[in-house]
Amino acid sequence: MVQAIDLPRNETGIRVALERLTEAFGARCQTGQAIREQHGHTTTWIKTQAPDAVIMARSTDEVSQIVRVCADLAVPVIAYGTGTSLEGHVNAPAGGVCIDLTEMNTIIDVHSEDLDCVIQPGVTREQLNTHLRDQGLFFPIDPGANASLGGMAATRASGTNAVRYGTMKDNVIALEAVMADGTVIRTAQRARKSSAGYDMTRLLVGSEGTLGIITELTLRLQGIPEAIRSARCSFPTVEAACRAVMATIQFGIPVARIELLDAMSVRAANTYSKLTLPETPLLLLEFHGSEAGVTEQSDTFADIAEEFGGTDIAATSSTEERNRLWQARHDMYWACLALRPGARGISTDVCVPISRLADCVGQAQAKAEEMGLIAPVVGHVGDGNFHALLLIDMENAEEVAKADDFVGWLNDLAISMEGTCTGEHGIGQGKRPYLTRELGPATRYMAAIKAALDPDNIMNPGKVLSD
Amino acid sequence: MVQAIDLPRNETGIRVALERLTEAFGARCQTGQAIREQHGHTTTWIKTQAPDAVIMARSTDEVSQIVRVCADLAVPVIAYGTGTSLEGHVNAPAGGVCIDLTEMNTIIDVHSEDLDCVIQPGVTREQLNTHLRDQGLFFPIDPGANASLGGMAATRASGTNAVRYGTMKDNVIALEAVMADGTVIRTAQRARKSSAGYDMTRLLVGSEGTLGIITELTLRLQGIPEAIRSARCSFPTVEAACRAVMATIQFGIPVARIELLDAMSVRAANTYSKLTLPETPLLLLEFHGSEAGVTEQSDTFADIAEEFGGTDIAATSSTEERNRLWQARHDMYWACLALRPGARGISTDVCVPISRLADCVGQAQAKAEEMGLIAPVVGHVGDGNFHALLLIDMENAEEVAKADDFVGWLNDLAISMEGTCTGEHGIGQGKRPYLTRELGPATRYMAAIKAALDPDNIMNPGKVLSD
Repeated sequence: MVQAIDLPRNETGIRVALERLTEAFGARCQTGQAIREQHGHTTTWIKTQAPDAVIMARSTDEVSQIVRVCADLAVPVIAYGTGTSLEGHVNAPAGGVCIDLTEMNTIIDVHSEDLDCVIQPGVTREQLNTHLRDQGLFFPIDPGANASLGGMAATRASGTNAVRYGTMKDNVIALEAVMADGTVIRTAQRARKSSAGYDMTRLLVGSEGTLGIITELTLRLQGIPEAIRSARCSFPTVEAACRAVMATIQFGIPVARIELLDAMSVRAANTYSKLTLPETPLLLLEFHGSEAGVTEQSDTFADIAEEFGGTDIAATSSTEERNRLWQARHDMYWACLALRPGARGISTDVCVPISRLADCVGQAQAKAEEMGLIAPVVGHVGDGNFHALLLIDMENAEEVAKADDFVGWLNDLAISMEGTCTGEHGIGQGKRPYLTRELGPATRYMAAIKAALDPDNIMNPGKVLSD
Repeated sequence: MVQAIDLPRNETGIRVALERLTEAFGARCQTGQAIREQHGHTTTWIKTQAPDAVIMARSTDEVSQIVRVCADLAVPVIAYGTGTSLEGHVNAPAGGVCIDLTEMNTIIDVHSEDLDCVIQPGVTREQLNTHLRDQGLFFPIDPGANASLGGMAATRASGTNAVRYGTMKDNVIALEAVMADGTVIRTAQRARKSSAGYDMTRLLVGSEGTLGIITELTLRLQGIPEAIRSARCSFPTVEAACRAVMATIQFGIPVARIELLDAMSVRAANTYSKLTLPETPLLLLEFHGSEAGVTEQSDTFADIAEEFGGTDIAATSSTEERNRLWQARHDMYWACLALRPGARGISTDVCVPISRLADCVGQAQAKAEEMGLIAPVVGHVGDGNFHALLLIDMENAEEVAKADDFVGWLNDLAISMEGTCTGEHGIGQGKRPYLTRELGPATRYMAAIKAALDPDNIMNPGKVLSD
């Protein structure tokens, strides 16, 4: 495990806070080691830093009440959703109280005429979409994991559909949040657009619980398209696949998903998902629209793909075939892990302008090979975002160090290509040094905002900004 | 004229700043009355508050240099684009220095492969689109006026295309800005998405020059669609038209524009633009896509419109006919003014959830009639945003007061319907009291951010936030 730096603990404050919270919440203020460790643990290689207590909040009032106790004593509070974040977001390097929001999982309102809904933060993506299906609606952001929507907003998540539907920043209309002093605010009304004041919605989206705790979300919804068609196409090189992606997007085909698997990932998928795909770089696509529209989109894509050397083009409107293909895509994490049993998967998350993507992926593949690392690549290539999944033996310190070097090297490469160290996972603990390298002086103003809104640094301390 | 409150002037600071700026910029630091008044004047009914000097900046370095002089002396700086804002945004209630950015109008880079461009803030919307046309690209945000893109970002502008392409918040990838201490920051890299740190881009978009001065923009571009088709349809009532809009959007038709004109507006358009439209509520639409796609969209819309009592449905792919129709829409401001020669047009800008739109428009029409005000309505109805253009005799104090009452009444009505007092014009000076009514406690945190980033309140003071 790597990179977890402990911060100074306010022992007296924490002790008194736990007394007061136990008085208020009784046995619901949980301090058992197992639950604490579970809440400091994420899908990451950063060591667990458990909070001192965990409370499953049941209402905005309860969240506010907990934050007020902690604010009074300058004790950290850490919001927790499903624990699927990847950069140590829910660790408690200075201890403190974890507010678990999973029990706040009510879908409060669905306004089908306005294509929006109001939900509590613990509602998960799959729960929401199951609820919406009968009304012919869906929420498009799909980061893979069945994450909570509060957590997805807090990390500015995106995923396979972002090329068409945007990221969480584009799909949150308004938020309710508990600020560091316990005040409950609403960032915006339910209107679809507004020029009223500073964009507090988008300031909280991606703030990773460091400026406030999201307690309610108003989300944009989409109508389920009349028709969905998926396609796949193999390419001789990553370069050729990326050129086809650029041409597809420039041509204005409104692809709903366009995903790249490199040859190693395709091999992993073939084995894990029992497919027989050619083991060369592959694009997987999905088209949303009318029956005629998706056929036209997929035919136009096929023409473009052929120009760039695409082969084995197959398109289908069969739900079963489509689900099989996308299930394989969603299972890529497990498929890649199976390439090296016992290894842990460490995911990079760089995102570059799409014109630099082929070069960036190519250099990453070459560097991994040169360093003797196994790193299959999958990518949301319509956005220029890709993940190299490093398969690491965590018992081998040398290999862990090498992986850490690779991650740093790749982040710096992406930054040098006008890209970012994180397209969708967030900064958390792990990427803080890269944020400074990426945005330089702008981080000073981020720190000023943090200090203004959370002067005692109690909201998820040790995340996003370097100390 | 109404509502312009002077703020205390820092006379000594202003005097010394003007000396230092004259030393640095010579005759380019202009203090003539005419140029000063012109730069405190906007398309508004708020009285002109001229700055003490105007400098046409030529580079980011010059903007930084001016801000540093002013920061040193706690003197206000006001950024100026084309002066088409509507809520007194460029007034100088405490005096100070106006930085005119219109000479910073270079299109620095167009990355056609990445569908983005990098421009200076004085580039106007039309200038950019003229430049892009040969490359088959366009920038979709169209607020009507040929505004500067820096100003459009600063006010979070949108307009007729927002229903499909979003607002400025959705189309700015990154900004360069000069902060209140003169530091130049970049808010993001050029990658299409990022989860790296607080969203400084969206914090500056819509901040109306109160947090920083935008000196460079990286914008998302779109490919010019293969085909464009426009349509119009008359309805017996605003209610019926709004129901058709909701059904169209729920059905998933990706309309590029969907605009409402009420009966009075149609009458104005008929006279001004020599049209013969039925004088009942009208929807104007535009569809972007492939040849087959736009025909399918427009046919589907026609079916929906008929269900809601739509008549006189006409669709065309002829560029000439389309331009004629949209020219009439763009000329609505002048057409409405011609309803009452000599009157000034005062535009409201509320935006409500679309399910409340018909009710909100209906109540606004009834209230205007009851108050004896002439107020034709046009609306970006796909977003729930509409403008009632009050035609006011500014010499008649009673009528001006009545109009002011109407504006306040309508803003409060929209807020009570989960809407906003401003869909796209911004807060400026005029709407500050409504911002507090709309967002309550959230405005305290906006003020905290303002104080943290601009402790001496030199960046466009007296705007957005109430003192």
